[in-house]
Amino acid sequence: MELFATPDARERHADLAADAADAGVPMWTVTEAALAALSETVTPQGLVAVCRHRHHADLAPVLAAEPRLVAVLAGISDPGNAGTILRTADAAGAAAVVFPDGSVDPYNGKCVRASAGSVFHVDLVRGGSAADAVRALRAGGLRVLAADAHGERDLDELSASGALRAPTAWVFGSEAHGLQADVADLADERVRVPIHGLAESLNLAAAAAVCLYACASAQRTPMRSPE
Amino acid sequence: MELFATPDARERHADLAADAADAGVPMWTVTEAALAALSETVTPQGLVAVCRHRHHADLAPVLAAEPRLVAVLAGISDPGNAGTILRTADAAGAAAVVFPDGSVDPYNGKCVRASAGSVFHVDLVRGGSAADAVRALRAGGLRVLAADAHGERDLDELSASGALRAPTAWVFGSEAHGLQADVADLADERVRVPIHGLAESLNLAAAAAVCLYACASAQRTPMRSPE
Repeated sequence: MELFATPDARERHADLAADAADAGVPMWTVTEAALAALSETVTPQGLVAVCRHRHHADLAPVLAAEPRLVAVLAGISDPGNAGTILRTADAAGAAAVVFPDGSVDPYNGKCVRASAGSVFHVDLVRGGSAADAVRALRAGGLRVLAADAHGERDLDELSASGALRAPTAWVFGSEAHGLQADVADLADERVRVPIHGLAESLNLAAAAAVCLYACASAQRTPMRSPE
Repeated sequence: MELFATPDARERHADLAADAADAGVPMWTVTEAALAALSETVTPQGLVAVCRHRHHADLAPVLAAEPRLVAVLAGISDPGNAGTILRTADAAGAAAVVFPDGSVDPYNGKCVRASAGSVFHVDLVRGGSAADAVRALRAGGLRVLAADAHGERDLDELSASGALRAPTAWVFGSEAHGLQADVADLADERVRVPIHGLAESLNLAAAAAVCLYACASAQRTPMRSPE
């Protein structure tokens, strides 16, 4: 790892500079202009770290750890959406987030920023087809749920049935075109977040938050018997 | 109301042009450049409607209809966040969304676009202080919950207690600074969305989606007795 900082940022984050020195991480002082170019953003915070990629090439090491919650981003092209869902998946306790081919690069600068650090917290799997990821997750014992505005199952019904307590992988599709039909068909169920008002749909990251937290909550709530 | 359209958009949306003519709504054909200036966006979709503002100046007419779910956006400055939460509130079945002074204008172009039509679906209340809105909602019989990453109540606990079945108003604060302490203190409870992984927090719109849907689901799920 290496760090690049403007003189201002180096002073503002003296504790971080000291930690870097202790850890033997080189820290270079650079101009505002150089840092702006490195950070790929309009209002950089003055610090850039160069890190090793940390993804797996397939699901095998993830499945070996018997995860209870996984998210698959299938064909998500907006890096802000992908990073936000990665952050939400981390917060919901997901063990891994899968970025198949055709989705945005998890190391895209906007995705990394939107993830607010979560790109370093959960296992990442990058590459392969979304269909193969779904097959591998099912073979690994997870129930695969495709988030689909036109899905046959209602999220609240599924939650009431107790089904969300099982180890679950959620598959989220493109913000513009939804999930590809061939991928959705491979899932155990296609699940819609109920729309109670007049909105036609939810924003993708909002729908993902509702789905992921429905599992997080179900997997941690003590069983109740129906009346 | 009036409509402005590029020649292309007018052709693409002939059905809409016919509906406008039937309804006596004037539709003007304008150049791409004129439309771009009207739409305040880089890639306009070719159509702009000029509509009447449709908000209430206070909560009285909203409370008269005995709402079961209301969202208050207190100090939210990002129009994309505000519009997304407005859309999510609509989808979750909220009757009204309150934009007190100090929050972004609900008619900001980015907010309107992010709302994906929901700016027309729910009752809007604009102006007044967030503190007065909280007082009015409590006086109107709603349980007011402040979404607060450091809140004393856990959302899952609150949900398990059955408390979310009551008519509820959620108050969401600034994406950068959280909810103002004096507003949070006026609420019935300060509620945190549980963080199960290593993320420090959720993105504001994701947290709002989880909170609003927790109520939507609780208010529609048949009562169950604990084991």
